[in-house]
Amino acid sequence: MRNWEKNIRKTVPYVPGEQPRGEHIIKLNTNENPYPPAPGVEKALKEISAKRLRLYPDPACSVLVEAIAQTYGVGTDQVFTGVGSDDVLAMCFMTFFNDTKPVLFPDITYSFYEVWADMLRIPYEKIPLDEQFSIRREDYRRANGGIIFPNPNAPTGVELPLADIEDILRNNPDVIVIVDEAYVDFGAESALKLLNRFENLIVVQTFSKSRSMAGMRIGYAIASPVLIKYLNDVKYSFNSYTMNETSLAAGRAALLDQAYFKEVLAKIIATRERTKKKLKEMGFSFPDSRSNFVFARHETCPAEKLFEGLKEAGIYVRYFNSPRISEYLRITIGTDSEMDEFFAVLKPLVQRLKQKEA
Amino acid sequence: MRNWEKNIRKTVPYVPGEQPRGEHIIKLNTNENPYPPAPGVEKALKEISAKRLRLYPDPACSVLVEAIAQTYGVGTDQVFTGVGSDDVLAMCFMTFFNDTKPVLFPDITYSFYEVWADMLRIPYEKIPLDEQFSIRREDYRRANGGIIFPNPNAPTGVELPLADIEDILRNNPDVIVIVDEAYVDFGAESALKLLNRFENLIVVQTFSKSRSMAGMRIGYAIASPVLIKYLNDVKYSFNSYTMNETSLAAGRAALLDQAYFKEVLAKIIATRERTKKKLKEMGFSFPDSRSNFVFARHETCPAEKLFEGLKEAGIYVRYFNSPRISEYLRITIGTDSEMDEFFAVLKPLVQRLKQKEA
Repeated sequence: MRNWEKNIRKTVPYVPGEQPRGEHIIKLNTNENPYPPAPGVEKALKEISAKRLRLYPDPACSVLVEAIAQTYGVGTDQVFTGVGSDDVLAMCFMTFFNDTKPVLFPDITYSFYEVWADMLRIPYEKIPLDEQFSIRREDYRRANGGIIFPNPNAPTGVELPLADIEDILRNNPDVIVIVDEAYVDFGAESALKLLNRFENLIVVQTFSKSRSMAGMRIGYAIASPVLIKYLNDVKYSFNSYTMNETSLAAGRAALLDQAYFKEVLAKIIATRERTKKKLKEMGFSFPDSRSNFVFARHETCPAEKLFEGLKEAGIYVRYFNSPRISEYLRITIGTDSEMDEFFAVLKPLVQRLKQKEA
Repeated sequence: MRNWEKNIRKTVPYVPGEQPRGEHIIKLNTNENPYPPAPGVEKALKEISAKRLRLYPDPACSVLVEAIAQTYGVGTDQVFTGVGSDDVLAMCFMTFFNDTKPVLFPDITYSFYEVWADMLRIPYEKIPLDEQFSIRREDYRRANGGIIFPNPNAPTGVELPLADIEDILRNNPDVIVIVDEAYVDFGAESALKLLNRFENLIVVQTFSKSRSMAGMRIGYAIASPVLIKYLNDVKYSFNSYTMNETSLAAGRAALLDQAYFKEVLAKIIATRERTKKKLKEMGFSFPDSRSNFVFARHETCPAEKLFEGLKEAGIYVRYFNSPRISEYLRITIGTDSEMDEFFAVLKPLVQRLKQKEA
């Protein structure tokens, strides 16, 4: 090791799902939306004048912040935007989690929470989900330096009812509570309606899933003005201009078309319900999902074998070789025809694996 | 103060230059390029298929990394990209500056260095520039946890000769040395040619100035593969997908047109030299600038008065009310006609201020 290596921050980075490229691939592994963004997004991108790009973008991201505020009926001083919800969440960790007491989050959850805490040297404690993969609200009544969980949870898809979130907030008035709603639009209830009553609540959402714009990197937080001010102070201390011109314009355009948004969500929810039914018929079980994925295990076939067999056929799902969940696959909901192709591969694969075992 | 406020990170954020909007404004305050990006950039943006945006971008930013590697004759494993050079530099601070010994940078320099160090709780020591606003290489021979400086320096515009950079590297083999070359294309010599000999050197550049793309947020670092690997590990621990689809495509397009790039640089350099001559005739003095701005003081007129007088006329320059530089204005080089308008306002303003004093 060279001398200069000893003070380098060594990290075990989060491993994102594979991003295979190719024509005959079905990507059901990173929870992307199978439908394109609202038509207005392409129009907005085509209308961007390249001349404008010589200038810095608006550091306050006003056009986008205003569109979000209007969409959700909050003040513009209640909205913070970032380069995907990962950027927003990382800024939240940096801004709000500075106690010596541990930050609490579930043991099975978005794996980035642990990565951020490690990287930022934030103490944390992972609270086990119950046997049904649910968060138990009574577990969040211990001393802590902040709380974060996704709702619905990832990669389980399980929704925590709003009454439980309210209970957690009521029992934690002295720390910041972050509800990460990356998947909330697919059928769960948003904690946004609790904002008026809890000044220490932050709701984080993203354009990557329900708005079909993972490729644009747009996330946002909605909270009380005082929290948004603190977040902006940290953001301006890190990188004043995080969102480029195209993100601001495309994000705004997506929000203007609520009809398209609802239509896409209805299609994905319908496909999800059909997918659940078929999976059940094939011997899979899963917690009820309110997201755009199903987290399923088969009664006899090992998840890793299914993952590999699907991949050989060009169908990518997500497999986590981690405690408690190593027998599960996270299957993103694609279009109906993508799910038909998925089942056309999965059925004979399950048959083959069953025969091998017998 | 609410209880939950006590563990919030409080920062004094960097204050970026004003971003006034309006038709009759001449912006010479944030060192943007007065010319539009290469024509290929607009074309690349128009060709982006909105359908593609539903997918996450390539986390490795390959199309852009390859174009940068090819442009500078380095390996793709020697290139790291980020959301503007601020993002790249902040990641560098986080990755490389983890010693208990102080990081060294000049007392007059890019003010973000101090902001990042404060936010990340990195100890640092500011080394005074000499009377001519030059970095003295012998000042960088003390115990330290890393070194960073811009070349040319900001906001002075002064170039540090390559021999001095080499001397600093030779005397600091055990720490990471970052040369921030945001303005290098406007006539200074790049430290890129030292890369083969110093594995602990990082060169950071940006598309915001010489490539007219501040609005797209693209920066990059070029270094030895081992340093780039460490940077990527930290980046993947923070936000795997920082650069959106449009940045990757537009950035690549800009690099393909080297002829346009050189033409724009030649125009700006010619305008800068004309501007220097006129400023001198009017009683201004300034260190020789190798950047796209001039850092000038007037022999009698107070900088703050000049700043305010120009602003009233719709001409924005940058004024820093800081020790040692409170009598200087940083004037970005615009087009010839913008500089003509600038002088048309500045000349009578200087006259008026002189008369007042007399």
